[in-house]
Amino acid sequence: MKRVLFTPGPTEVPSEVLEAMAKPLIHHRTDEYRQYFLEATRLMQEHLATTQPVLTLSCSGSGAMEAAVVNLMSAGDEAIVVEGGKFGERWGLIAQAYGLTVHTVSVEWGRVATVEEVESALAAHPRAKVMFVTHSETSTGALFPVHDMARVARARGVATVVDAVTTFGVYDLHFDRSDVDGLVWGSQKGMMIPPGLGFVCLSPRGWDLVKGSKLPKYYWNLAKAKSALEKGDTPFTPAISLVLAARAAMLLLTEEGRDQVFARHQRNGDATRKAVRALGLSLFAEVPSNTLTAVHVPQGVDGAAVLKTMEQRYGVKIAGGQDRLKGKIFRLGHIGYYDEGDILRLVGAFEASLIDHGASAQPGAGVRAAQESFRSSRPSAAARVG
Amino acid sequence: MKRVLFTPGPTEVPSEVLEAMAKPLIHHRTDEYRQYFLEATRLMQEHLATTQPVLTLSCSGSGAMEAAVVNLMSAGDEAIVVEGGKFGERWGLIAQAYGLTVHTVSVEWGRVATVEEVESALAAHPRAKVMFVTHSETSTGALFPVHDMARVARARGVATVVDAVTTFGVYDLHFDRSDVDGLVWGSQKGMMIPPGLGFVCLSPRGWDLVKGSKLPKYYWNLAKAKSALEKGDTPFTPAISLVLAARAAMLLLTEEGRDQVFARHQRNGDATRKAVRALGLSLFAEVPSNTLTAVHVPQGVDGAAVLKTMEQRYGVKIAGGQDRLKGKIFRLGHIGYYDEGDILRLVGAFEASLIDHGASAQPGAGVRAAQESFRSSRPSAAARVG
Repeated sequence: MKRVLFTPGPTEVPSEVLEAMAKPLIHHRTDEYRQYFLEATRLMQEHLATTQPVLTLSCSGSGAMEAAVVNLMSAGDEAIVVEGGKFGERWGLIAQAYGLTVHTVSVEWGRVATVEEVESALAAHPRAKVMFVTHSETSTGALFPVHDMARVARARGVATVVDAVTTFGVYDLHFDRSDVDGLVWGSQKGMMIPPGLGFVCLSPRGWDLVKGSKLPKYYWNLAKAKSALEKGDTPFTPAISLVLAARAAMLLLTEEGRDQVFARHQRNGDATRKAVRALGLSLFAEVPSNTLTAVHVPQGVDGAAVLKTMEQRYGVKIAGGQDRLKGKIFRLGHIGYYDEGDILRLVGAFEASLIDHGASAQPGAGVRAAQESFRSSRPSAAARVG
Repeated sequence: MKRVLFTPGPTEVPSEVLEAMAKPLIHHRTDEYRQYFLEATRLMQEHLATTQPVLTLSCSGSGAMEAAVVNLMSAGDEAIVVEGGKFGERWGLIAQAYGLTVHTVSVEWGRVATVEEVESALAAHPRAKVMFVTHSETSTGALFPVHDMARVARARGVATVVDAVTTFGVYDLHFDRSDVDGLVWGSQKGMMIPPGLGFVCLSPRGWDLVKGSKLPKYYWNLAKAKSALEKGDTPFTPAISLVLAARAAMLLLTEEGRDQVFARHQRNGDATRKAVRALGLSLFAEVPSNTLTAVHVPQGVDGAAVLKTMEQRYGVKIAGGQDRLKGKIFRLGHIGYYDEGDILRLVGAFEASLIDHGASAQPGAGVRAAQESFRSSRPSAAARVG
């Protein structure tokens, strides 16, 4: 049965990427592979507007998060963790696993921390070395003002590391122009390839912290990864087929143009949010992200049944809530390889399934709102993915 | 240009595996994925003859090695590392990175440590908790008697962890009948899939050590991976396409039959070694493994030129020596998806390239020896891969 992923990761994989993985495997210690690997790296740098090395690790996004922690910190160091969801909490769990002293800025799930809250924490903990934050919290769909947070942190001499797992390829992260000192992300979101690669990019200030870090590391040794990259290598055998997939995907994103990619995500997010509101539903996140739209399950509707119908009748797979939000929200993902038609499919299936399960929404209202949103926001020369 | 990998990892990937990776991606939190993941896990357990959980990590084989170290040990613990090559050395480097006291049993590259040498080290270091050994040393092609070593270690209350990165799918590891307490391996060798997955299997004794381990860990937390596996899950987003590839590959190995797989590797190794000797060349390893055949570059022959000709003229990619063996040996890999015709291609290309570069071998001698080896060792009902 046909099933399109509208989950906030993994996301839909373009056929060009699937084809890259389906070719006979090549060896990684060859000029051919090195050329592909360095091209993928260069395109990621261009996408991030950075001249800093982008390091490719064979792991999930959480592995890249751990790599950032163990390369920047030493045992006993103090860290500030800003969290309002499952993935913000993860920063704290990793930091605690390595014996760091963690000061948490915690906001209710769905809310975002403000720059003022972060400023207070920075003032209260003058010995903090690094602040770990989540850009778009995948469990709630909330977008944190990480660039503003990084600005106030830098003013106090604190480095900021951003979990951009779901925002790479969605938002302009303009790394070198920002005050962010570390970015981590994964492959199965805006990069439009399957999971299995994690990425880390550090600022010169970030690399200075690496020099002083004393936490134990071997597989996550970023200094080694940086040296190896200079020769087109990795310290360990890379996930070759995924690196070739990354190159294929970055070529697609580059061909579309980075501004167009970000604008398309904005339009897809706008259209989805307008559709949801037109159905009489309310958004969960205080500041909704263009990565995913989290929606309260309406009273009297069986959320799990809606998910099942969407998938089995309409071939559209979205996500429900995680942990404490289980059964309470829908998460409609629109990260990556989606065009207007895809969003109409998503919204159409969502609307139909809600009505199938007794919601009082007006049939067609969601899809009409999405269409209108696209019509009013369409760029003069229509830009399409791929 | 057509190029067949005869490198000791990555190895050739069957078309059934490439096809599994080329299908539209499915989500990992679904019954469909869980069923595939659990099937791959069960087939790996059957292949290892174990009832213990096989844990799948998204990383390279080195990541799985690190996972074994950080889950079994605590800072200050003593470990014995048996090494005679680049990958044996790696155990020591990982252990040192985590502050362990390492006692090394070191043998010249190409040699294998004896059970007696290991016994002496065990006697000299009664506080050692774990012994880390390499089954087949990929840098030299030497096969270490790990099962005998594990027996003497267990007799002294020391656990043995085996790097089986290249021997899974090549040798019968019969885990539950052995005295080995930990096995680690990677995906891009005998499992016949691309790199990007690492695997760990621990004995009940190994799991007892996990309980006492105090080294910091988050991504490598095997206790969490074990709990998640019971529900068909992983603690972090898995490399989905590679897990589906692992299932496809394990189905192929199961269909062929484990004894047939091991016997085929024995025949392929025998034929390659006989061909090499018939060409007047000498083997590098004291006890050559069925994973790869390491061969001294003959005097007066430019090894790098032979490698290049093999690849560019005959479409056969083998490996040269690593580190201190650079330029000194050829490494002919025969791990995984190779049948008799493949080995004749390998040997034929090797022979031809050597002669092209002035070696004094008799044309046809290597291929004839391989043919004779296959003819004399062929099982009554010819078993073929796939």
